[in-house]
Amino acid sequence: MINATFFHAGCPVCVAAEQQFAQALDPARYAVEVVHLGQDSSRVAEAESVGVQSVPALVIDGQAFHINFGAPLSALK
Amino acid sequence: MINATFFHAGCPVCVAAEQQFAQALDPARYAVEVVHLGQDSSRVAEAESVGVQSVPALVIDGQAFHINFGAPLSALK
Repeated sequence: MINATFFHAGCPVCVAAEQQFAQALDPARYAVEVVHLGQDSSRVAEAESVGVQSVPALVIDGQAFHINFGAPLSALK
Repeated sequence: MINATFFHAGCPVCVAAEQQFAQALDPARYAVEVVHLGQDSSRVAEAESVGVQSVPALVIDGQAFHINFGAPLSALK
């Protein structure tokens, strides 16, 4: 299984992306974890370490992809 | 099946996104079409009509999601 982590902050942009994106990945190949950085700010450092600069973002196999723009990571610390 | 269209322009940002994203969608639920706007500029208007402003972008069920940033659509006309 390939690990995929969807980082978001509960904003409308994030929720739309989560519903269309995170849930669209092939469950036979991807283990998807959804992390709400607004509620779990202890994981902001983890997001930063893989290159996440804003949310919503989807990290697939260690590679960060920013989807549209909801909020900068700095707003979640 | 839900239609998903991945618009790109062949740039490195686009190719990485295509490999990780377009191919990650669940094939049991999504019919994915990949459109190279650099080679097929006749479809730029179609991309614009669903809200695409830059590539790479993935349109799922009529909703546009911009992934990172490769090139503005205006550069492909």
